[in-house]
Amino acid sequence: MPSRGFSPEDYAVRTARAQSAMALAGLDALLLTSEPDIRYFTGFLTRFWESPTRPWFLVVPAGGAPVAVIPSIGEALMRRTWIRDIRTWASPAPEDDGVSLLADTLGALAGPRGHIGLPMGAETVLRMPLADYARLRSALPDARFRDATAVLHSLQQVKSEAEIARIATACAIAGRAFARVPEIARAGTPLAEVFRRFQMLLLEEGADWVPYLAGGAGPGGYGDVISPADERPLARGDVLMLDTGAVFDGYFCDYDRNFSLGPPAADTVTAQDVLFEATEAGRAAARPGATAADLHDAMQAVIAAAGDLGAGGRLGHGLGMRLTEWPSLTATDRTPLVPGMVLTLEPALEIGPGRMLVHEENIVIREGAAELLSPRAPRALPELE
Amino acid sequence: MPSRGFSPEDYAVRTARAQSAMALAGLDALLLTSEPDIRYFTGFLTRFWESPTRPWFLVVPAGGAPVAVIPSIGEALMRRTWIRDIRTWASPAPEDDGVSLLADTLGALAGPRGHIGLPMGAETVLRMPLADYARLRSALPDARFRDATAVLHSLQQVKSEAEIARIATACAIAGRAFARVPEIARAGTPLAEVFRRFQMLLLEEGADWVPYLAGGAGPGGYGDVISPADERPLARGDVLMLDTGAVFDGYFCDYDRNFSLGPPAADTVTAQDVLFEATEAGRAAARPGATAADLHDAMQAVIAAAGDLGAGGRLGHGLGMRLTEWPSLTATDRTPLVPGMVLTLEPALEIGPGRMLVHEENIVIREGAAELLSPRAPRALPELE
Repeated sequence: MPSRGFSPEDYAVRTARAQSAMALAGLDALLLTSEPDIRYFTGFLTRFWESPTRPWFLVVPAGGAPVAVIPSIGEALMRRTWIRDIRTWASPAPEDDGVSLLADTLGALAGPRGHIGLPMGAETVLRMPLADYARLRSALPDARFRDATAVLHSLQQVKSEAEIARIATACAIAGRAFARVPEIARAGTPLAEVFRRFQMLLLEEGADWVPYLAGGAGPGGYGDVISPADERPLARGDVLMLDTGAVFDGYFCDYDRNFSLGPPAADTVTAQDVLFEATEAGRAAARPGATAADLHDAMQAVIAAAGDLGAGGRLGHGLGMRLTEWPSLTATDRTPLVPGMVLTLEPALEIGPGRMLVHEENIVIREGAAELLSPRAPRALPELE
Repeated sequence: MPSRGFSPEDYAVRTARAQSAMALAGLDALLLTSEPDIRYFTGFLTRFWESPTRPWFLVVPAGGAPVAVIPSIGEALMRRTWIRDIRTWASPAPEDDGVSLLADTLGALAGPRGHIGLPMGAETVLRMPLADYARLRSALPDARFRDATAVLHSLQQVKSEAEIARIATACAIAGRAFARVPEIARAGTPLAEVFRRFQMLLLEEGADWVPYLAGGAGPGGYGDVISPADERPLARGDVLMLDTGAVFDGYFCDYDRNFSLGPPAADTVTAQDVLFEATEAGRAAARPGATAADLHDAMQAVIAAAGDLGAGGRLGHGLGMRLTEWPSLTATDRTPLVPGMVLTLEPALEIGPGRMLVHEENIVIREGAAELLSPRAPRALPELE
């Protein structure tokens, strides 16, 4: 297991890089409100974000360390990070839930006419009430609020070795749990029981928590990949798929594994072969200088050569502090791949009506060939009793 | 275990109640973007919300059933709900990620000059990119976008018996897991291992998943209540606290339990007594006609009578599809309590510097006395070896 947390120097480097990008973009401050964005610059790691009650703010000024503007309930934990300027209020406070404290902080750090960047683009959310955001803008009438999505994407999409080690650890944990699926899944086991026991295996193998588990089971394939489990027992002829995002030290893995209850049907074997080869093609194409679209195209070519079976959509995505991140492996995403990007390869086939098969692996872009972070799925579908 | 899901009639009733409140508020449509809001009107239950990539929309018109405007990856699951009008697009689509489809839908259902309500107030988040929200407003230049927080609060804060049964089930699951803490926690066990094993117990006892676990351990009390676990081993004299939000069928419990490693110190025993009595006072005050502030005041009076030990802040909150909901048990929240409200009672004491004790129980307001949903904590701190 890698050690936990990152050094103050790591956070200082991230902050300096952000400030370089901010200078190029003409931004006087960043305003961050989401869990991963705040954690990226501070190391503030808590499951308390599950409570939607309180807003949390981090201001990254043009120079110097970030300033936390947070509910007092988080002060003790924030004091353990490298952040020294911590401004708190007693939340919830319906009349003024940190807005005036935040406005004062932004006004002082960015100036009354400052350009304040916040994530407004794809895959981002402003995690504060919309009415409070309007109040903030009224309190800083001469400030300009601008989209800073590109600043954050450019920083976060390339992982440090310490970050990669955490994702690799999450992948290894899931790999050990997947290897133990025969202990918990056989003909007659209700799918909901498999889901429950698989989460227990992930924890036993070292996951801190299990934010995501989906999957499905059905004769020769499954109907969709986002449903919760039902009580239907597994039956011979089913394909079982489990897809997990388990977390280690705040970083996700995201990959799936398929199992056949007894020998698979002929068209399932064919689909498995195609998806295995598609993933191989994706891995081979995953080199610096290629684009996200090149990986999509490499996988799609294998799928198309096998007939018109593609399930469409994107065939993978970024991975890190979030279960899914930019870029997207689609035909149109021209993001250039650079070493340190962690990606999923996720080709899917529609075998028949309501019958899908999805493969997924996690890789990191390296100089030369990509490195697998998930233990490679076997070429042949593993069989369960 | 109660059955899962709700009947189409339940959702139709919720929709009709929303439409009555919308009519009073002069709203022609509701626009919902968050997991609990969309699930409340549809039954769309999936952990796929963990992926921040795609936005999801539900439009509740002034009359008739809601209309889903969602990524096509969710269509199969949405088709299993009572929703019949499902409009999809292939997301992610950076150029237009559902915005024009949503604008067309809202324009048709609310009219070009319609008043569109969305949650903008306390404890709400708009779960779509801010830039897309701006595009939506530009596409409907004559529509008015207004705060609908009160409409949703008024509906969701009073739970049906079917909802209460789910929260009660989650509470019972956690109660069985808490009863088994002596199996997993003793002097020498690292706190991180206790957290891992406790999540496994919750799953084994029937939780679908465990979105929240926090806690702490320290000599005679703990320093804060939102930190993740560290590797420090439990030691004699520690107080261990575990606070969980486990989920059954999409509904949370939220309560904690305290344990003493060996006999507790005298001031810990005193604090335990005060908090037990404060919780009793909160239960006794929890009747229809009282306000959230009355419950706060009843608990605070016990704490104040024992000296100036209060940790301050709110002393409880609503509970349901979210770990924390409105109202807040604070001195200023005048929300009247009505039968069907599910609340936490959560008094806290500062025993000394960096040493807290927090109690928590879950109750539902009934005609007459409130009903405990969590198995009542024992008066004396249970001891671990």
